[in-house]
Order: sequence, then C-alpha cells, then structure tokens
Amino acid sequence: MVSHSDEGTIGDLVVSVREGKGRVSVLKRYLLTPGPTPVPDEVLLAGARGIMHHRSPEYSELFLRVVGGLKYVFQTSNDILIFSGSGTASMESAVANLLSPGDPVLIASCGNFGERWQKICATYGADATVLEYEWGRTVDPDDIERALAERDDYVALFVTQSETSTGAVNDIETIAEIVRSHPAVLVVDAVSSLGATDLETDGWGVDVVCSGSQKALMTPPGLAFCSVSPAAWALCEKAINPSFYLSWKLARAALALADPQMPWTPPVSIMLALDKALEMIEDEGLERVFVRHRILAKATREAVKALGLELFAGDDPAQSSVTSAVVPEGIDGRQVTRIMRVTYGVTIAGGQGRLDGKIVRLGHCGYFGPFDIITAVAALEMTLRQLGFDCQLGAGVSAAQRVFMEERGW
Amino acid sequence: MVSHSDEGTIGDLVVSVREGKGRVSVLKRYLLTPGPTPVPDEVLLAGARGIMHHRSPEYSELFLRVVGGLKYVFQTSNDILIFSGSGTASMESAVANLLSPGDPVLIASCGNFGERWQKICATYGADATVLEYEWGRTVDPDDIERALAERDDYVALFVTQSETSTGAVNDIETIAEIVRSHPAVLVVDAVSSLGATDLETDGWGVDVVCSGSQKALMTPPGLAFCSVSPAAWALCEKAINPSFYLSWKLARAALALADPQMPWTPPVSIMLALDKALEMIEDEGLERVFVRHRILAKATREAVKALGLELFAGDDPAQSSVTSAVVPEGIDGRQVTRIMRVTYGVTIAGGQGRLDGKIVRLGHCGYFGPFDIITAVAALEMTLRQLGFDCQLGAGVSAAQRVFMEERGW
Repeated sequence: MVSHSDEGTIGDLVVSVREGKGRVSVLKRYLLTPGPTPVPDEVLLAGARGIMHHRSPEYSELFLRVVGGLKYVFQTSNDILIFSGSGTASMESAVANLLSPGDPVLIASCGNFGERWQKICATYGADATVLEYEWGRTVDPDDIERALAERDDYVALFVTQSETSTGAVNDIETIAEIVRSHPAVLVVDAVSSLGATDLETDGWGVDVVCSGSQKALMTPPGLAFCSVSPAAWALCEKAINPSFYLSWKLARAALALADPQMPWTPPVSIMLALDKALEMIEDEGLERVFVRHRILAKATREAVKALGLELFAGDDPAQSSVTSAVVPEGIDGRQVTRIMRVTYGVTIAGGQGRLDGKIVRLGHCGYFGPFDIITAVAALEMTLRQLGFDCQLGAGVSAAQRVFMEERGW
Repeated sequence: MVSHSDEGTIGDLVVSVREGKGRVSVLKRYLLTPGPTPVPDEVLLAGARGIMHHRSPEYSELFLRVVGGLKYVFQTSNDILIFSGSGTASMESAVANLLSPGDPVLIASCGNFGERWQKICATYGADATVLEYEWGRTVDPDDIERALAERDDYVALFVTQSETSTGAVNDIETIAEIVRSHPAVLVVDAVSSLGATDLETDGWGVDVVCSGSQKALMTPPGLAFCSVSPAAWALCEKAINPSFYLSWKLARAALALADPQMPWTPPVSIMLALDKALEMIEDEGLERVFVRHRILAKATREAVKALGLELFAGDDPAQSSVTSAVVPEGIDGRQVTRIMRVTYGVTIAGGQGRLDGKIVRLGHCGYFGPFDIITAVAALEMTLRQLGFDCQLGAGVSAAQRVFMEERGW
C-alpha cells in the first residue's frame, strides 16, 4: 500500500521524487473508496501463489469451497454461479440469461447503478418500465406495489440494494415481500452491499443476487457472482437472448460435473484470494461483519455532520457501504478528491455522472476498521480547510471517535 | 509452486500427508500445460501489491503502459481493447461486436477452438459456413481462397492460429494474404500463440487478434485482449448484436478519455502482473522469445518421437505452444495425466472433447525453459513405463538434451 509519489507535499515530510530534483520521499497510500476496497495482506498473498490448473481436483476443491463460502455470505442454498469479471458482468449475465427481446420488465432506479440496469436492459431490447427517483433518494416500495398491480406481465424487477453512486440503501426486504405475490422474478444488484448489509436471499425470497469480489468481500476485482433461484432458472429456460461467456446454463453444466469447475479458464489467483477472504468473513461471522459496517457507517455520518456538511443520501442507519457528503457551496469536489489523493495519499471517491464535483464518497465496505474512517475524515478536514472551508480540525475525527467509543462491538 | 499432496508416492521420497497417517511429505508441483502456464515469481509478486483505484492517474499510467506493451507483442498500431475474462471472452466480444444476426461468415475449424468459433457464431445467429478439418490437421488456405471466391458477401472469416486442442498451427500469413483482396475482415484466435509464434498483425493485415493473459504472456488468467483494425471498426459500427460488458465501443470510449481507463472495474492485480510480464518480454525481445519457443517445441517433438510415440499434429516446425502425442494403443491417456499429476506432481494436459484419453499435450508457451521440457518428458517416460509401455527411460530426455545443445539461442 506504499508507493512513490511524484506530486505530493505535506510540509517538510513529503517531497517530490521526480528524478533530477534530488529529493526522496514516500507518500504512503490509503485506498478508502467504496470499491475497489482495501485487501488484507493475507488475501493478497494467497493470490500470489503459483497458478494451479483449472481442470484439476485441486481446483475443484478450491472452487467448491469458494461456492460454499459465497452461499454463506449470500445466505442462500440457491445455485451460485461465478464469472470472470466485475459486478457489471454479473448484472449483464442476469439480463441476458433471464430475458428475451421485448420482455416487459420493471426497473427501480435511484442512481448510476439503477441507470446501469436501464442501459443493459435497453441493450438486450427489453420493454422496460422505469420507476425513477432523484439521485440520493431511495426507491419507494409502494410505487413498486402499484406498478405490479397495474400490469401483471412483468417478467422481472431489477433493483439496486446499495446505490454506490449516492450512498442510498433500498429496502429489499419489503420489496421482496411485495414481489412475492407476483410472477416477476426479483433481481438485486448487491455489488457494494453483499457482505456489508444484511441480505437474506432465501429468507426474503430474492431470486437473483448479483455481486462482485472487490467490495465488501475484501478481494481484488476480477470475479462476479449470481445466485439463481428455481423461479429464475425457469425464466432462464425460456430466454433467447445470446449469452456465451456469461451463460448461466454453461456455468450450471460445469458446476454439475464430477469435478465441479467453471466453463472457461477462471482467474485462479483471484479465486485463491477470495477463498482466503471468505475464510476471514466466516471467522468473523456474518452478524459481526454487519455490526462492524453499521458502526463504521454511523461514525462516518456523524463525522460528516460534525464538519457541517450535508449527508447527500440522508442520515439513514441502513447505509453501510458508502457515505456521501455534499461538497460545500463554492468548492469543487474534484479538487477535494485530488488534493486528498495527491497531497495526503488518501483516495476517496468523487461523484459519478451528474454528481461529478458535487459530492464526495467515503467507502467503508470490506476490510475497514475505525482508523480507516479516522484517516479519511482527518484528510477530508485538512483538505477542506486548505480549500478555505470553515471547519474545525478534529471536529469530524472526534465525532467518529465518540461513536467508536460508545458503540459495542469493538 | 510447492503444495501438499494427499495422494502421491514415489518410493520412499514422497509419502502421504493425509491427517492421521502420521507421515509428512511435500510433493513439489510443476504446471506444464498449455494454459494456464507457469508464472514467474516476479509477476506473481507484482500482482500481490495493494490494489490501486481504477479511476486514478496511477491506474491510467499502468493501463497505458500495458496497452503499449501489448501493441509490441501484437505487432500492431491498431487499437488494443482489454477485457476482464479469458480468451473466450475476447472471442465472444469479436462475434458480438462485429456481427448482426444473419450475417454470412466463414469459419475455418480444425479443433476444439475452431468449434468454439462455431458455437459463439451460432449463439449470435450468424449464417456460418464452416470449413471443417480433421482434428490434428491444419486449415488449407486454398480452401479459404475457393470459399471466398464462391461468395463475396462474407463479412468475416474466423480462424485459429494455434489450435491448442491438437497442437496444429495454421498459416495465418498466407490466409491473411488471401483475405486481403476480399471485403471480409479476418479474425484470428491467437490465445495460445500470441507471444510464442510470430503474428504480424499489421504486417500481414490481420483485422482482429484475440488473446488472453494466461498463455505465452506468462500472467495469471483474468485478462482478454482484442486488437481492432479500422476495417473491423467499420464493421463494428454496423453491428447490432447486443454487447455491454464486452462492448468494443464502450472500451474505445474509455480508452479515449483524458485519463485512459477501462469501462468497468478491471482486475487491477492481473494488470499489475501483466505489466511486469510484458516488461520481461520486452527485455527478452520478441524475436528471441520466438526462437526460444521454437527450440522448446522442437526438443519436445524430438523427445516424443524418441519415445516411440506419434506426434498427433505431425512434425511441424510451426508448432510452438503445445506438442500433442498420441497415447499408445491399450493405454488410457487419462491414466497418464493422472499418474503424472498425482504421483509425480507434474501437470500436463490430456485430450479435449473427442480426444479425451487419446492424446496428451505438453505445454511450452510462456515462461518455459529447457528443464521444464526435460521435467515433463522425464515424468512422461516414468509414467508410460509404469503403465507397461515399452520405452527406454531417458530416451526422450536425451533427445531433448541434444536439441538444446545443438541449437543456438541458449
């Protein structure tokens, strides 16, 4: 996590290493975004072992252990399919494998990743009805109930659990309860929420959950997952959209072999890394993982408020993967993230799309502890002061500290 | 590359470690297949550094350096697109992004990966004419010339350079010369050949070259590549097949940003590893890399012949990635690979599909040296003897040694 910088300065501590300037420095780096997220050293090293062949009993053993670990995190006994790719690959696989051109679908969208469902569904020629919410808001389950009552031919509802672009978290439990009395299958993008926020795939009846390795699963990017319910498989049987590399049926066939495997050469290193990360999650225990995320998120929200910034997605205790703060009037959010990265070595995320420059996003999904939050908040305070914003150094940090000291669980 | 085994025995040297047996042993492992291939420690460790954010100047720098390294290996100034996935993902991306349903295409197929072109084209509803050759044979360029003369509306020709399933290598230079006077774009699967066999993308005029990280590029699996010529881009503009995660246009748009990047979260660790591997290839020099592969392949062929086995794809000096040997009458090839792996820790590949049990395949693409060949051949000799085949221990090894001593280049 330490690398050379050629740009930054913090007083006398950090000086340029650009060759020829005759100065030497190391700017220690902190990756504190909502994805990719920090990866534990144990996981990085697990991924650095020599490659094993992907058509061998050793790999089958690894593969089955990973599938088992994912079932624990997905809280499901449904099939888990693993793909080479990021979360978007799992999302596309759902659209391609569930739908045929012209199929009526409902999309509930409140940010960039809701719009991604729209774009993928449009690519595959679905007949999409979109419930659209202002970015930063959550989806209203009542609207879904009304929409499903109006038309009974929707084959699927696509929705996001944690809208990483805004920090908003949708109420999947209530949405699932509504969809249960309707023939549509429920497809949830849980890319940044899985392993950070409770998602009872079987308990709530979520047909398809899409996720990826590089968020709360504490693993480098490169693997994508879908859990698939029997109802989703039934829809898949009828779907005629083209799909090969991300084909669910081919993945299922390879899973059913005597030596279970994946249809194509998998990213073996990332599988080895994920295996280690899942072991760490099982050791911590999913309930404790969720509690940790809730406390990290609460401390971040309290810190943002103490700095006098507005929480872009409101003060919602359901938020657990990312906290977004509105950048104060007159300050360019791109400057905030740039200075934090260049001067302090702290990488947080800015706004995506229409929110570019308007919000900053502090990640806390995956391998995060209290002092990662304190680091991010401290760097944010220093940066905002540098940009002329009137906030008290330490105000956010101490608010976070108070949460960490008050809350049980540490 | 060292791991515990719970199965193997070589006399007193290797004993079981199954718990409760009270014995301890380590079976050193050798991965000598045509993919995934051995990865240098430097490359493994490069991939183990902490994740950098994929929307950062640091990543853009890495990304551009990798694209530059790939252009060197692809011998092209065409655009290079990088995808998360294995070679099959790049093949699917070509079919999806170049074709519309019903487009007439020509496929020249002489093995499992030729059949993969057929399956992908069928998935996307192409109107495919297939020139099919017996597995183990090469594609006859004259047939392509005749087929193109018969119909002038083919929009693309799909062909494999190194048919990994058989060891046969097709003459892409001659095929490219034939296709040049025809409007069809030439799409070459160079997954196991790129970086092992000469492929002059620009010099010969190959429109699209598909490849992956885990063969001659000495990198863990997880990245796929396409080079795309202007003629291929022109065809892409007209194509209406659905493509999102593997969309060429989205990849091109991200490449054109001020901070060039990939549209989706990339497998950053594999990019870091590939960056190191490409540096090693540039240091060795592409010409020397090709010479090394030709010598490794020749030594393997001579060893196979010296053991009295038949070369499945003939004694062709164009072969450079994999050598396939026919398993002697009365011996099950699956037993050969199993004993080599379990008893000796040496993993080579068996036959795929209809060749299962009938051939074995020794890899030599990527990070291979003379003593990897000697290891594979020595283990093969011992295994064949164990299975009752009458061959002289050391006969194959010494044939390989003679090649290594005679040939310049070491």
